[in-house]
Amino acid sequence: MKFVLIPDSFKGTLSSSQICSILKEEILRFFPDAEVTAIPVADGGEGTVAAFLEAVGGTLVPVTVKGPFFQEMNCSYGILKDGTTAVIEMASCAGLPLVEGRKNPLKTTTYGVGEQILDAARRGIKKIIVGLGGSCTNDAACGLAAALGIKFYDKAGQEFVPTGGTLSSIERIDYSTRSPLLEGIEIQAMCDIKNPMYGPTGAAYVFGPQKGADPAMVQELDAGLRHLGALLDSRTGCPVSTASGAGAAGAMGAGMLAFLGSRLLPGIQVVLDIVHFDSLISDADYIFTGEGLLDGQSLCGKVVSGIAGRAKLKNRPVIAIVGGVKDKEIQDVYRQGVNAVFTINRLPQDLSVSQTFSAANLHHTAADILRLITISK
Amino acid sequence: MKFVLIPDSFKGTLSSSQICSILKEEILRFFPDAEVTAIPVADGGEGTVAAFLEAVGGTLVPVTVKGPFFQEMNCSYGILKDGTTAVIEMASCAGLPLVEGRKNPLKTTTYGVGEQILDAARRGIKKIIVGLGGSCTNDAACGLAAALGIKFYDKAGQEFVPTGGTLSSIERIDYSTRSPLLEGIEIQAMCDIKNPMYGPTGAAYVFGPQKGADPAMVQELDAGLRHLGALLDSRTGCPVSTASGAGAAGAMGAGMLAFLGSRLLPGIQVVLDIVHFDSLISDADYIFTGEGLLDGQSLCGKVVSGIAGRAKLKNRPVIAIVGGVKDKEIQDVYRQGVNAVFTINRLPQDLSVSQTFSAANLHHTAADILRLITISK
Repeated sequence: MKFVLIPDSFKGTLSSSQICSILKEEILRFFPDAEVTAIPVADGGEGTVAAFLEAVGGTLVPVTVKGPFFQEMNCSYGILKDGTTAVIEMASCAGLPLVEGRKNPLKTTTYGVGEQILDAARRGIKKIIVGLGGSCTNDAACGLAAALGIKFYDKAGQEFVPTGGTLSSIERIDYSTRSPLLEGIEIQAMCDIKNPMYGPTGAAYVFGPQKGADPAMVQELDAGLRHLGALLDSRTGCPVSTASGAGAAGAMGAGMLAFLGSRLLPGIQVVLDIVHFDSLISDADYIFTGEGLLDGQSLCGKVVSGIAGRAKLKNRPVIAIVGGVKDKEIQDVYRQGVNAVFTINRLPQDLSVSQTFSAANLHHTAADILRLITISK
Repeated sequence: MKFVLIPDSFKGTLSSSQICSILKEEILRFFPDAEVTAIPVADGGEGTVAAFLEAVGGTLVPVTVKGPFFQEMNCSYGILKDGTTAVIEMASCAGLPLVEGRKNPLKTTTYGVGEQILDAARRGIKKIIVGLGGSCTNDAACGLAAALGIKFYDKAGQEFVPTGGTLSSIERIDYSTRSPLLEGIEIQAMCDIKNPMYGPTGAAYVFGPQKGADPAMVQELDAGLRHLGALLDSRTGCPVSTASGAGAAGAMGAGMLAFLGSRLLPGIQVVLDIVHFDSLISDADYIFTGEGLLDGQSLCGKVVSGIAGRAKLKNRPVIAIVGGVKDKEIQDVYRQGVNAVFTINRLPQDLSVSQTFSAANLHHTAADILRLITISK
């Protein structure tokens, strides 16, 4: 028997990695000889590097880079077992927890992310995955670009490193100075949101407040993004400022599109590629996935439906174990490739009560699914 | 594929019969050629006759008998398809709904139940099942016994039909006048409670209040039961008054033991016998059972564990679909013969919310179980 486990987290209760370990424990209890491949799912936010290293193996690379306020700091990124792929969390040196008590999206930078990319490039890495998520910045990757050699000038012709509060001062951008080390390196961004760069659904208005922006600051940030957006659109000849995901991580999405030619991909697609999911499942008896709440939104390229689509092409069975399911909204998920959905709610209890027992409830639910598999074989 | 459905009701939300029909609908959706045997489970209370007729077929026999206050009333009992077994609900002519607004356990009688037994005996019936449950009486089957010819006398030598309020007046009981029609007829009582005839856990104290007894009346009823209990114990030479279930249906359990030599059996055991459960499941692929809450009590001879025990002997798989499960209390149920337990809670919701959607939740849960069976075959 071969099982592949690839669950999304149950937000607020169980991490993907915890779910994997519970499922694995139950599977080995009922099928001691089973081959179990556990793939914790990363979404680009905190834990992304750890999830990839757990899924495919690899090493952590310590680096000293600039933190959110340009101070030196230690952090690390991952080089996967293949030796040619690096995984960087933008939050590792530009994340919200790093500025707790002194949030200021006018001043924070993604400079350190660029330094990490450069470090990986110097090591001969050929593919770099950057997880967008949990940012404390609003600089549209200008800091990152500066670290990679791109130069920004103001009206007076002075070079500077733009941050959220100084985007409007950018008069000219010199791309020609970009580090030649980046040539031939594919850089992907993991991004699970669809917001554009600016405007009412843009980075400043939607995510600015949680980064410490008051209404006046939100307007200022948005104006800066709008100014830079026009420059980027004009330079690339593409509407990068309105691209889906351009607003991710303080508009870092837009910056990565324009400065690095990156692709913005849903986290699950990146994970599935990296783990070679298609060949991994080719001889799997069961694929277990799941998420906290399976609802209408789940059908739009999120973890469960992303996995179902791949599994369906290989005709492999998918079982979703979830915290809850809105049945009326998700009937199409069965056509997408999910074979059965089970919830972990062992008693009729409100989430505020039941979430205390999520781990135990998942254990018991998994056990009963496996018991049914046992008798149905 | 052959499925046998035999679920207990989900008290307060879905009847056993409703559950059967939902499960059957889903099974035929996934396995259009499946053979599905649905056995609604009766517990001796209201709906018992209907459940037996639905499970094995038969006819309703209309009768005119005495109601709770000795008035004439129309009701009916069932004769099963075999033509030799009758099923009588004591509640049909001595049930609580019949005295709504005028409850009085001092005065109500089980006389009509005796008349129904006599009617069945006159038709050549060989086995009579009497469902105890939902009674408005506290007469320890004295009315029933009187209808069958047994005579009760007071101190003055006057014959009378005792009710709850006059049990203490019984001086002598003449069994010799019992109708000879009862010879050779096996009479079983369905009884799912274990209370004795009298005392703090007896019929009057535990069930008197819901039948309209205030504290003083409870004492009076209990004293009457204690008086009669001594007479019954002495006459039979057995401790019928303290037997498990003697207190059922206003101590009708004790009366049936003493006046009729009946056996008091858990409802599920009677049902399993009548439907020839053991041979019915011998070629079943799956047995579906369930109940509202699967907890520690469920392991003590209730529906799910009763079925599991029989199925285990035949090595047939049992799936329990339940409203809730207290996993820590029921781990032994898997040793008893239940193979897997699934709950219908599709969202983490309190029962007060989720019970509105019980039918839909059961539909979806059954569908997912059947989908898993489909892919596991």
